[in-house]
Amino acid sequence: MRNISQFISDRANLVDASGIRKVFDLAATMKDPINLSIGQPDFDVPDSCKEAAIEAIRKGFNRYTQTQGINQLISRVHADLTKELGRDPGEVFVTSGVSGGLMLAVLALINPGDEAVCLDPYFVMYKHLMTMAGGKLTAVDSYPDFRFYPERVEKAITPRTKLLILNSPGNPSGYVMTREDVQAAVDLARKHDLIILSDEIYKEFTYCEGADSPAKFYDRTLVLRGYSKSHAMTGWRLGYAAGPGEIIQQMLKLQQYTFVCAPSPLQLAAVTAEDVSMAEQVAAYRRKRDLVYNKLSSKFQIVKPEGAFYMFPKAPDGITATDFVTRAIENNVLIIPGNVFSSQDTHFRISYATTDEKLEKGCDILNSLV
Amino acid sequence: MRNISQFISDRANLVDASGIRKVFDLAATMKDPINLSIGQPDFDVPDSCKEAAIEAIRKGFNRYTQTQGINQLISRVHADLTKELGRDPGEVFVTSGVSGGLMLAVLALINPGDEAVCLDPYFVMYKHLMTMAGGKLTAVDSYPDFRFYPERVEKAITPRTKLLILNSPGNPSGYVMTREDVQAAVDLARKHDLIILSDEIYKEFTYCEGADSPAKFYDRTLVLRGYSKSHAMTGWRLGYAAGPGEIIQQMLKLQQYTFVCAPSPLQLAAVTAEDVSMAEQVAAYRRKRDLVYNKLSSKFQIVKPEGAFYMFPKAPDGITATDFVTRAIENNVLIIPGNVFSSQDTHFRISYATTDEKLEKGCDILNSLV
Repeated sequence: MRNISQFISDRANLVDASGIRKVFDLAATMKDPINLSIGQPDFDVPDSCKEAAIEAIRKGFNRYTQTQGINQLISRVHADLTKELGRDPGEVFVTSGVSGGLMLAVLALINPGDEAVCLDPYFVMYKHLMTMAGGKLTAVDSYPDFRFYPERVEKAITPRTKLLILNSPGNPSGYVMTREDVQAAVDLARKHDLIILSDEIYKEFTYCEGADSPAKFYDRTLVLRGYSKSHAMTGWRLGYAAGPGEIIQQMLKLQQYTFVCAPSPLQLAAVTAEDVSMAEQVAAYRRKRDLVYNKLSSKFQIVKPEGAFYMFPKAPDGITATDFVTRAIENNVLIIPGNVFSSQDTHFRISYATTDEKLEKGCDILNSLV
Repeated sequence: MRNISQFISDRANLVDASGIRKVFDLAATMKDPINLSIGQPDFDVPDSCKEAAIEAIRKGFNRYTQTQGINQLISRVHADLTKELGRDPGEVFVTSGVSGGLMLAVLALINPGDEAVCLDPYFVMYKHLMTMAGGKLTAVDSYPDFRFYPERVEKAITPRTKLLILNSPGNPSGYVMTREDVQAAVDLARKHDLIILSDEIYKEFTYCEGADSPAKFYDRTLVLRGYSKSHAMTGWRLGYAAGPGEIIQQMLKLQQYTFVCAPSPLQLAAVTAEDVSMAEQVAAYRRKRDLVYNKLSSKFQIVKPEGAFYMFPKAPDGITATDFVTRAIENNVLIIPGNVFSSQDTHFRISYATTDEKLEKGCDILNSLV
């Protein structure tokens, strides 16, 4: 008789969740930590969205929707994107969060041996999804300022490269690509015949004059956006994908046998979300960004982030990020070491999606460790 | 420059959605059809479950849950299963519907070239998920009575077979495995060292003295159940998986990068669902089963189903199921040809999850076509 472990697929064995798990295991030992590790807003879903979901549930909008989601949301997003991009964005469908869109995109596009390129540091899911599909992610050093360096990226492109994954505003850096960055990325994708996968989950949280989506300039862009971060609906599993019809149709075919559809009553709340201004929450996060930056920047080397709700300071000289994070955790501050997101273990991620009080305290403790 | 189609992965190209799509395309041309094709209950989510979801939303339970879902639901399910099976069911986690559990199980267990065996006719998703993982599904003829014939199944097992997929009550046949069937399946799994993947989504709709889950007799069983059908929550994407810890842990690792978690506020409604009796709805469906069986059995050859809300009659002699379904659709009755679920094109699926009036009318029309 085989051991159960002999039944496990190679793809499952290859997906390594150890990095973030170690941090969570450490965190589980902490009592009432100052938690600066959380990847979601500290505010709640706007009331009007809650009411829209509640009304949908009460009215019995609880059955499967079509695979692509409700037309009301699709047509709204399609119209808004058309206006924003100045062109038809292709087809749109409702995904189960941006993660759902990422998974379907990778499964629809990546054969074993195919490659994708992204910047290092990067959101961990990219690597694991590529592994699941038998592909390879090449992450290109973007330190020290997390910019898109076309000459570095170009070196990573091979004949097997299909995807250029962009993530702006970025996790974990909070970096927002400039117009110049976006143009360089688009030029490179065009030159090397790549699909751009543009993960724009943090778009709402942009504190500078935001650069346009690469989808404005390059029609082989697959745009992924969601309501999880912007409207604090992380548990509602709602996002959308927009891009070339041929790709979207393949993603939909796979959605039919995996996600089936995004949660139906909550889809109606996303329609409402499109009309809810989050300006106040965004302004609050910008202020928190300033608070943390001002507190830490004399002790730490930091690229001031222009988006998301993360900061990615460099650990003090002579100590790895992992060791610095261990010291922070010993002092009751929970942050994430950069090697979770990177081949380098030099930086750490702070999420400032928490109360000012915790931010103040947490920064004081971090400063005291230098 | 490559055509977009050159970017599409082999796995996406291999997944064929044409069978069911043809039916839906036909259906789209029908005005107010008598729709006997629907794979979900015609009642709504119980009020107490709706209120539980609404309260969760109002109270702000809208953020990610842990990957495995809320402890309240996990411990409830674990306790109930322990009682039902008479043994510890292993680990339990909350999936995004049974589809979510199926996808994670297949991705966690199937390497390219690995095989799974199920009975023919079968739920279409099994085939497509196996294709997505690079595996092969062998569907074993269970006609004419849809029983588990161990000698037929055994012939389909090869050294690459890892999974025996059972689905009782079954879609599309409505067949409920007998104790003898379950014992034969367990014996075969034990003899050939297979994991049983037991899709029990229709368990609530069992009209005979139900046989026990194979999980009662065989601890290498992965049980998948859900609230979609039993509590009319198809759009809520809620189910659970229970089985050997080593497999569950691998599925959870993959859930982390795909589904992330099942919709949070709706998970609380599932806890409520565990206390809601669906006896009345089940009795109504049993009555509908009798209504349809009594109307059709003099004209059609039918194995009287003891579960789910489907019937799978044989098309009249001398005509394929596809041709018969085309005639039915021309006469405004929407049913599904058996070749969507089978290598045979001899039977058709009726769903009786609709009003008595539509069932009466639909059956009269079908009878008139013989």
